[in-house]
Amino acid sequence: RHYSIAVIPGDGIGPEVINESLKVLKTLEELHGGIRFSYEYFDWNCQYYLQNGRMMPKDGLEQLKNHDVILFGAVGDPSVPDHISVWELILPIRKGFQQYVNLRPIRLLRGIDSPLRYKDHDDLDFIVVRENTEGEYSDMGGRLHAGTPFEMAIQNNVITRQGSERILQYAYSLAERRKKKHLTVATKSNAINHTMTFWDEVVNEVRKDYPHIQTQLYHIDALAAYFVMKPESLDVVLGSNLFGDILTDLGAAIVGGLGLAPSGNINPEKQFPSMFEAIHGSAPDIAGKGIANPIAQIWSVSLMMDHLDLPELGKLVLDSIEDVLVEGIVRTPDLGGSCTTKEMGDAIVAQMKKS
Amino acid sequence: RHYSIAVIPGDGIGPEVINESLKVLKTLEELHGGIRFSYEYFDWNCQYYLQNGRMMPKDGLEQLKNHDVILFGAVGDPSVPDHISVWELILPIRKGFQQYVNLRPIRLLRGIDSPLRYKDHDDLDFIVVRENTEGEYSDMGGRLHAGTPFEMAIQNNVITRQGSERILQYAYSLAERRKKKHLTVATKSNAINHTMTFWDEVVNEVRKDYPHIQTQLYHIDALAAYFVMKPESLDVVLGSNLFGDILTDLGAAIVGGLGLAPSGNINPEKQFPSMFEAIHGSAPDIAGKGIANPIAQIWSVSLMMDHLDLPELGKLVLDSIEDVLVEGIVRTPDLGGSCTTKEMGDAIVAQMKKS
Ligand SMILES: CC(C)[C@H](C(=O)O)[C@@H](O)C(=O)O
Ligand SMILES: CC(C)[C@H](C(=O)O)[C@@H](O)C(=O)O
Repeated sequence: RHYSIAVIPGDGIGPEVINESLKVLKTLEELHGGIRFSYEYFDWNCQYYLQNGRMMPKDGLEQLKNHDVILFGAVGDPSVPDHISVWELILPIRKGFQQYVNLRPIRLLRGIDSPLRYKDHDDLDFIVVRENTEGEYSDMGGRLHAGTPFEMAIQNNVITRQGSERILQYAYSLAERRKKKHLTVATKSNAINHTMTFWDEVVNEVRKDYPHIQTQLYHIDALAAYFVMKPESLDVVLGSNLFGDILTDLGAAIVGGLGLAPSGNINPEKQFPSMFEAIHGSAPDIAGKGIANPIAQIWSVSLMMDHLDLPELGKLVLDSIEDVLVEGIVRTPDLGGSCTTKEMGDAIVAQMKKS
Repeated sequence: RHYSIAVIPGDGIGPEVINESLKVLKTLEELHGGIRFSYEYFDWNCQYYLQNGRMMPKDGLEQLKNHDVILFGAVGDPSVPDHISVWELILPIRKGFQQYVNLRPIRLLRGIDSPLRYKDHDDLDFIVVRENTEGEYSDMGGRLHAGTPFEMAIQNNVITRQGSERILQYAYSLAERRKKKHLTVATKSNAINHTMTFWDEVVNEVRKDYPHIQTQLYHIDALAAYFVMKPESLDVVLGSNLFGDILTDLGAAIVGGLGLAPSGNINPEKQFPSMFEAIHGSAPDIAGKGIANPIAQIWSVSLMMDHLDLPELGKLVLDSIEDVLVEGIVRTPDLGGSCTTKEMGDAIVAQMKKS
């Protein structure tokens, strides 16, 4: 089978970690006779913006549409305001391709210690489902009385029934396939009384269709504390766009840092391409030094394989990452080592070939 | 001097922990000849709501207004929707009395271990300033197409220049009085592009008046991870209403839990009474059992003393809490012990008298 992959390396460490992902993809092709990957590269990033006045061409989504999947590095550079680079590149792709599921496993890999004193590998293995198309990430709003002392800005947070139902159904179907059969839903309906009470209502309706799944609603503040105090009781966690964003960086921290946190932006109906990227950003402070940890990005390739219904390849990638970490010799600086991005990628590729 | 205190015990464990705070206040009066506290009690809670159809009387704020300070327990009971109890009691007080600063120290007390493996007492000592009157906690918004498949809800997040400037100025003046002289500001201007870019602009204007304070803007997702990975570099942290809420529950978790987290809702101009409460809620699951940890509430009394310009009394309370924790004999279940709320309060009072 043939799969066409759109590659957007982006800014900062994006291209560096993408390089290692491409090596991994090449190795998968070598090891598995039956599949072929082809690549199309897109140089859309802040550099592109400075030259063209936009982050991607007008027909950018058109150009991406016929690929099976998108491999995305990272976006953001000090030369372009963050809200421009984000709202003109990553968010239009997520929203335009109805990648309404942002899937983010929080799992302590073998070979890694958690910064949480009393938590071990068995305690840290859950998955966050983040709503990825609406909620707090809405461009609706504006400013009044600019330049005066009474200047103000308003931003609309928008929750729809359809948007909530589909992400809930996805989260439940995921919970059904797991052992604990447990769904924890983030809310803040005590304070955010219009959108979040509506969200709770939809949760309480949809949960009736899944009586065999234990559902719990937690206010986001309490849930953040929970991630530190009792992560072992979590299984599937569902959050709005913003809450999911916050919880997954926090989740990354409790399993060893942003260098180890992958994500898939998924359109479950496969009507549009899904996109795979590390949770971390472009990290301008370490860009160009060749020391970024490529594991988050390589793990995202593993999620991509799962999405393409090649779970044995997804497993091979993740197992190889873990084997290298258990050996403990090749580690990037964020993990206390001194090896380079390339050495880390090479070690994972070598392990894949050994397995 | 005489101070009049409005006491609102509220729901659940609120009255239980308030009881212990009142013992502490009585002890302060005994030990310090020059001061006198008088109390007025208000039975505003969910019970009151069920009888009267509202959480407090129409002239509730009027009744509170002439007190020097308010001692608040907790609000919330399963018999009343949370958004009602919150929007009719705690939020009108915070907003109506322009308690625009919600001050929340995050400090690992002596005698307590952090759940963070590598962090010790020196690493965990910072303070969160939370904007307490606007932002995401705005009642503006509503619902459309109710009952249809395309039902939706909108909530307005509102940031004003005046609201932002005053909280920034407070945060900076606090940073000036601390050793590290460092301010970390939470934002999310890459995604929340109307309100948060405006917030960043105001930050970048106000910081010019404080060149001797090191200012850093962090996206809320990254900052949440920071709380786990590098809390030792934090000094004063400023967040919007919601971001401050999330960060302080998380902050409580890294210093031993919600049973140890105090707060002050402060009107710095002292035009209106300020309010002191534990960060934790009414905890219906343990209410009535007499096992709630009263330390968060008693520490809030210490913050109240600071606010009343009685810092030596504030210090006495906090030191006594720490002395009891170091002794390690009297501990409530959340701290791994088996003593009662009352025993914990008594031990702190006894320690105050010894000191
Ligand atoms: C009860 C609730 C509305 C409140 C808040 O979100 O402000 C609480 O969580 C707090 O932190 O004081
Ligand atoms: C770059 C930014 C807009 C993005 C987000 O907030 O979604 C990032 O933090 C993420 O988690 O993918």
